[in-house]
Amino acid sequence: MSSSTSSALETEIFQYIDVHQSDFIKDLKEWVAVKSDSVQPVLRKEVIRMMALAADRLAALGATVTLVSLGSHQLPDGQDLPLPPVILGELGKDPQNPTVCFYGHTDVQPAKKEDGWKTDPYTLTEIDGNLYGRGATDNKGPVLAWINAVETFKALKLAMPVNFKFVIEGMEEAGSLGLEKLLEEENQRFFSDVDYIVISDNLWLSNKKPALTYGSRGNACFFVEVECGGKDLHSGTFGGIIHEPLTDLIALLDSLVDPTGHIQIPGIYDSVAALTEEERKLYESIAFDLEEHKNNSGVKKFLYGTKEEILLHLWRYPSLSIHGIEGAFHEPGIKTVIPAKVVGKFSIRQVPHMDLSVVKKQVVEHLESVFSKRNSPNKLRVSMPLGAKPWLADVNDPLYKAARRAIKTVFGEDPDYIRDGSTVPIARMFQSITQKSVIMFPIGAADDGEHSQNEKISRFLLFVHLLYKRSGEKPL
Amino acid sequence: MSSSTSSALETEIFQYIDVHQSDFIKDLKEWVAVKSDSVQPVLRKEVIRMMALAADRLAALGATVTLVSLGSHQLPDGQDLPLPPVILGELGKDPQNPTVCFYGHTDVQPAKKEDGWKTDPYTLTEIDGNLYGRGATDNKGPVLAWINAVETFKALKLAMPVNFKFVIEGMEEAGSLGLEKLLEEENQRFFSDVDYIVISDNLWLSNKKPALTYGSRGNACFFVEVECGGKDLHSGTFGGIIHEPLTDLIALLDSLVDPTGHIQIPGIYDSVAALTEEERKLYESIAFDLEEHKNNSGVKKFLYGTKEEILLHLWRYPSLSIHGIEGAFHEPGIKTVIPAKVVGKFSIRQVPHMDLSVVKKQVVEHLESVFSKRNSPNKLRVSMPLGAKPWLADVNDPLYKAARRAIKTVFGEDPDYIRDGSTVPIARMFQSITQKSVIMFPIGAADDGEHSQNEKISRFLLFVHLLYKRSGEKPL
Repeated sequence: MSSSTSSALETEIFQYIDVHQSDFIKDLKEWVAVKSDSVQPVLRKEVIRMMALAADRLAALGATVTLVSLGSHQLPDGQDLPLPPVILGELGKDPQNPTVCFYGHTDVQPAKKEDGWKTDPYTLTEIDGNLYGRGATDNKGPVLAWINAVETFKALKLAMPVNFKFVIEGMEEAGSLGLEKLLEEENQRFFSDVDYIVISDNLWLSNKKPALTYGSRGNACFFVEVECGGKDLHSGTFGGIIHEPLTDLIALLDSLVDPTGHIQIPGIYDSVAALTEEERKLYESIAFDLEEHKNNSGVKKFLYGTKEEILLHLWRYPSLSIHGIEGAFHEPGIKTVIPAKVVGKFSIRQVPHMDLSVVKKQVVEHLESVFSKRNSPNKLRVSMPLGAKPWLADVNDPLYKAARRAIKTVFGEDPDYIRDGSTVPIARMFQSITQKSVIMFPIGAADDGEHSQNEKISRFLLFVHLLYKRSGEKPL
Repeated sequence: MSSSTSSALETEIFQYIDVHQSDFIKDLKEWVAVKSDSVQPVLRKEVIRMMALAADRLAALGATVTLVSLGSHQLPDGQDLPLPPVILGELGKDPQNPTVCFYGHTDVQPAKKEDGWKTDPYTLTEIDGNLYGRGATDNKGPVLAWINAVETFKALKLAMPVNFKFVIEGMEEAGSLGLEKLLEEENQRFFSDVDYIVISDNLWLSNKKPALTYGSRGNACFFVEVECGGKDLHSGTFGGIIHEPLTDLIALLDSLVDPTGHIQIPGIYDSVAALTEEERKLYESIAFDLEEHKNNSGVKKFLYGTKEEILLHLWRYPSLSIHGIEGAFHEPGIKTVIPAKVVGKFSIRQVPHMDLSVVKKQVVEHLESVFSKRNSPNKLRVSMPLGAKPWLADVNDPLYKAARRAIKTVFGEDPDYIRDGSTVPIARMFQSITQKSVIMFPIGAADDGEHSQNEKISRFLLFVHLLYKRSGEKPL
């Protein structure tokens, strides 16, 4: 950070933050302790409790807070489950100031100690300057970083350079159910005076260099269910005389992607945008350490050998990942069972200009075609329980230029313009509904391990970004 | 049951059993309540507690009971776990009487209510004359049937027509670890005066007609582990640029068996015994209701259309079943994860004269060959944590003829001579080590659902067999 150019004001802010680091971390510890996992229905009440905590926190800042109810949703098994409310917050109404709307989420991915966490995932634990815990980087840490930044201004009785609005949701990890409808309803009200929308829900490309993100891939999740009957069978009593559902499912899943990562579903690449020369040039200039990224992943070798190929396949080409199987034996040890009903789960990260309904049709037709060749009497059901669209912004937008300037001020270097291989449907949603400028600026390093075991955020990064936020707002 | 030919003695026994049915069921309820699951390491203490309960029960009959310690075993993760002791029991030493040794086990397969049980698996529940609960038929019910039969003789102060020995173990569902060594050690001691060995750990072929079993398939269980690194990855951040371990594993599992159930591992059928004309004739005479068996399974269609083909593929040809995957996402909902380490689990039910070490070699070579063609940098490990051999007895042995006579007396009809598609390694072990006559006679109907959800035993079958046991012993 370029402290040599700090003003007296900046020094005052630095000092406040330094003195209050442990308070800020205490806040994060309290939030991480809430098992606000929106994926597992049984934890929904914790997600709702987390929303109440976040609302209280914003209200304590002096913000006007509204909890908007989104009703309920139906699970695949027919169960009706309440959706957590969305927080709409407002702080400052000076017509001379621009209005910045910050979006974040307080729900998290599933996490269990026995999945391979070194520390309890719901107990924020600091080791060597890193704060480990589920939600530390995705996305409780960044949400609190914003809140703590505003709090610093308040505590020091400084004039706020912008008006703030907050949209905090609790279903991001489960597809932001109900949010699109809310944005549409609030477009002419809550969003009418918003100038800029800022999202901090992704990571830098490296562990060290700041970045700004201008695009993200979509995510089409699929369930493939194969069922032979109502009950699991003994492999001794029925092995060899029935079409086993898991054998059918394994064949279906094996038909999806080849060993080079190429998706085998006919027509799936037809609508992928062609790569322009200008776009290719953008990739060439990005500082990206292949070895560092490989070390972050823990894998021995990538599918491609050059920086450009890696980034192209991560950002602007689709990929298909198989996540697992529900209903089969999954515990340690042996169970000689023929599972009666198994559900394979995979997802396609799709890119402009793939259409979700076309992708769904291609997947269903492909799987039905593979299945029909097996002459299996089992029942096949394919569904797409979640479909999020990709997002792409214009790097020449003034918002991106302002953010670039802010990063330069705080970090002393230009950020990379990057895309994100993962999905932030909210970026696309905000842009297409509100028609405002949307930027994603990450508060998290490449090795933060979002969605993984031992998720963390660096103490350094967390607090440098508190400053960054302040400087970053100035140019707006 | 042919009650018209009952003697006064038989009538007395009938009456005692009728009056005490609820006591006997209370015993079974108490045993089923113990979660003596030998597959999951965390429940090992319950298996050991179950052995103590069974030992007390035998001692209460007046038997001399020895609990033989088997030491401990090592799990794949390196953890050392104590083995439950084996019970050796003795009741009666009249040199004029033959000595019958009964084998059974009190451990069970894993069971959870949420797997699809209508009732709590560890609470024995009677519905329409069926007693539901894990272990009801496999194998706690049959073990208690024997104990209750002896108890009836004791209560009525009747002379025992045979000397009894009992071998009760607690690791059958996990491969009878340590038992083979014990049998070898006790061969010249405990087994020296044993004449006949009787095992009741399988099912009839139908829901109605009694059967005697003269063979069982073996079971070679395999773990296929594929690993890319130390931690799970986000499918947005790494999807499209790495060789995903689960994609590798799915391809490996898909190479094992074709849609017709034919195993694709080169050489695997080379040592399967040729079918003789005499053997084929034995199959023709068996009463077997294909429709009934299909209804028991819940599946719509079998792989074969005739009784003979079905029985041949169930009993004397090998089969391969995939049981599940450890390490992948297996819960309801969605988790967009790339699992870092996944372990596929499958087993081969092998038959005479397939050799376990050859089977293992063929499996390892096949999987390594498929894997090498994928050019994956991931780590492959194949292991065979459990290998149980098939068993085959001579249906012309006097023991089988005596048992046939006994069934005729109690049920009024001849039993079928059948084989079992599942594995009872103990039958082969007893026969090859002790060189005694071994018979398996099932106490359980085809629809009992062993290893499955909603396992049950019929109240009628349980108590008819108490008589059967008495009559069955007479001819020895």
